Amino acid sequence: MKDVKAYAAQDKDAALQEIQIKRRDLLDNDVAIDIMYCGVCHSDIHAKLNDWGNAKYPIVPGHEIIGKVTAVGSSVSNHKVGDLVGVGCMVDSCTDCSACNEDMEMWCENGSTSTYNSKDKHLGGHTLGGYSKHIVVRDHFVLKIPTQLDTKAVAPLLCAGITTYSPLKHWNVKKGDKVGVVGLGGLGHMGIKFAAAMGAETVMITTSEEKAQDAKRLGANQVIISKDLDQMKEHNNSFDFILNTIPVGHDVNPYLALLKRDRTMCLVGAIEPLENIHGANLILRRKNLAGSLIGGIKETQEMLDFCGDHNITSDVEMIDIQDINTAFDRVQSNDVKYRFVIDMESL
Amino acid sequence: MKDVKAYAAQDKDAALQEIQIKRRDLLDNDVAIDIMYCGVCHSDIHAKLNDWGNAKYPIVPGHEIIGKVTAVGSSVSNHKVGDLVGVGCMVDSCTDCSACNEDMEMWCENGSTSTYNSKDKHLGGHTLGGYSKHIVVRDHFVLKIPTQLDTKAVAPLLCAGITTYSPLKHWNVKKGDKVGVVGLGGLGHMGIKFAAAMGAETVMITTSEEKAQDAKRLGANQVIISKDLDQMKEHNNSFDFILNTIPVGHDVNPYLALLKRDRTMCLVGAIEPLENIHGANLILRRKNLAGSLIGGIKETQEMLDFCGDHNITSDVEMIDIQDINTAFDRVQSNDVKYRFVIDMESL
Repeated sequence: MKDVKAYAAQDKDAALQEIQIKRRDLLDNDVAIDIMYCGVCHSDIHAKLNDWGNAKYPIVPGHEIIGKVTAVGSSVSNHKVGDLVGVGCMVDSCTDCSACNEDMEMWCENGSTSTYNSKDKHLGGHTLGGYSKHIVVRDHFVLKIPTQLDTKAVAPLLCAGITTYSPLKHWNVKKGDKVGVVGLGGLGHMGIKFAAAMGAETVMITTSEEKAQDAKRLGANQVIISKDLDQMKEHNNSFDFILNTIPVGHDVNPYLALLKRDRTMCLVGAIEPLENIHGANLILRRKNLAGSLIGGIKETQEMLDFCGDHNITSDVEMIDIQDINTAFDRVQSNDVKYRFVIDMESL
Repeated sequence: MKDVKAYAAQDKDAALQEIQIKRRDLLDNDVAIDIMYCGVCHSDIHAKLNDWGNAKYPIVPGHEIIGKVTAVGSSVSNHKVGDLVGVGCMVDSCTDCSACNEDMEMWCENGSTSTYNSKDKHLGGHTLGGYSKHIVVRDHFVLKIPTQLDTKAVAPLLCAGITTYSPLKHWNVKKGDKVGVVGLGGLGHMGIKFAAAMGAETVMITTSEEKAQDAKRLGANQVIISKDLDQMKEHNNSFDFILNTIPVGHDVNPYLALLKRDRTMCLVGAIEPLENIHGANLILRRKNLAGSLIGGIKETQEMLDFCGDHNITSDVEMIDIQDINTAFDRVQSNDVKYRFVIDMESL
């Protein structure tokens, strides 16, 4: 299914032209945005490589978008020209099904529209994302960005931020809870910041001793090296919640053992087959293994406001668009602390 | 680890003598019970065969016990001579840890005492179960049996009953919910009866067309043949709760697909490694995979009272103790509808 090479052989000029014409005239409820920054998510690479078998070329990735409003449609009242705004993983949904009515547009029963590589309702073809100078987005899907934060470091909140904030809220993480974050990457580093800001005793669980110091700098109270079985055993049955950000299939059994009875480990990274789970690890203390996917627009705004109140941003490394292939390579080798953000001035 | 054959070569008379002396004199809070009936649980076979590597010989299995009180200790006030009573999977716990204080003695932090094959606090050695004429049990762990029910068919409620009732209650199954029960055996047939009695739209999910009619007789509103992929697909994302009673490792992915977003499938049978779970099946709609183990004493009494109110018992086939090896073979080949119960008069 990986037809990226086949695509690369096509006429790139024609592709660029196809991309150019995709910017639509404003509908009544549209917001036009000049893009300032766009985060680089691992999903962008999966999409480019067609790892999920649904890539539509030419792909323009990018769903961690920060920009300024340049124009609004006639019925838009909640955004105005000059506003600092963000766009995350979705740009449209039906807004009227049971999921949308519960502010969970990502599970829209009629299908939400992803920011890129999704069927484009208005122009036909597929949507094009944030590795671009401009984007036009339905007002409901445009987020307000707290202006007191370092703007470029806000971009990753639109995906990595909400992906980790949402499960911590959904499973009611609160002051005094012992919360584990497994894996220290783009998602994991946000998980630590949020759990700590929510008042939890935040524990980084990582294979890498090197990451221990950095985890503490990010807010972890404690670090467990998961390869140290004695250390893991000391923490058995002690966690109130575990956020598992490992982006590939792995053995979840050692982490399930860390949960108290009746508690949950939530996967947010591994959209892949996991290794065998032993039923006893769930049955014997009524434990839960769950998953979570980004979050709705209302909760994404709540997360951004929480970040404004708690001075939370992502740790970013800025790049020019010309560096994107190197950045992709470095993301794949886990060599970034902790998110690349493209300065769109460079485009 | 399977040393059952080695044990069988020992002097059986000595073993029987060891068993005889295990009946203790009554402590102040003890209840002496003459056993009338004892259900045959698959766990009994796992124990006999040392499948879980912790068997202590001589084993006397049996944790689905019905009998009459013959004597009580001086401080026992809640049971009296002549009462119809039951004993399930536990006969003791500390009764004073956080789990016990929340009426979940099975998760006693100091270790609950299983009805058989567990360390015996009073006599040393290990506890001996219900394949026997008598048992002495701490009063807190003795259940009151509704007298209006068919007594011999109540026995399996003490394990198969509470194991299925507890998760249905814990995940708040209620009138109008669409509830799936996967697997039709000792546990599954109780799951159907309970879910139907709770007012759920109860759906049997089975590989076997033969079981469809019987599932309906037991109370299922509908049957899905899990091998029929089109039929399974029709029910995708439609279940409020699934009780998975399959007793062996299996592929849970097709069942996870049946759940609505934010809902749970609970394992109660497979104390074994499951086949690979795909992370996407949990992540994409925030689904949960959980497990559950029997239930506490308070909830077990609640379940028995519920059965009294709703005229629920197990479907049983009565055997004499002399038939136990045949019964074990038939349980292993899934040839019982749906629980063997030993008439202890035969011993």
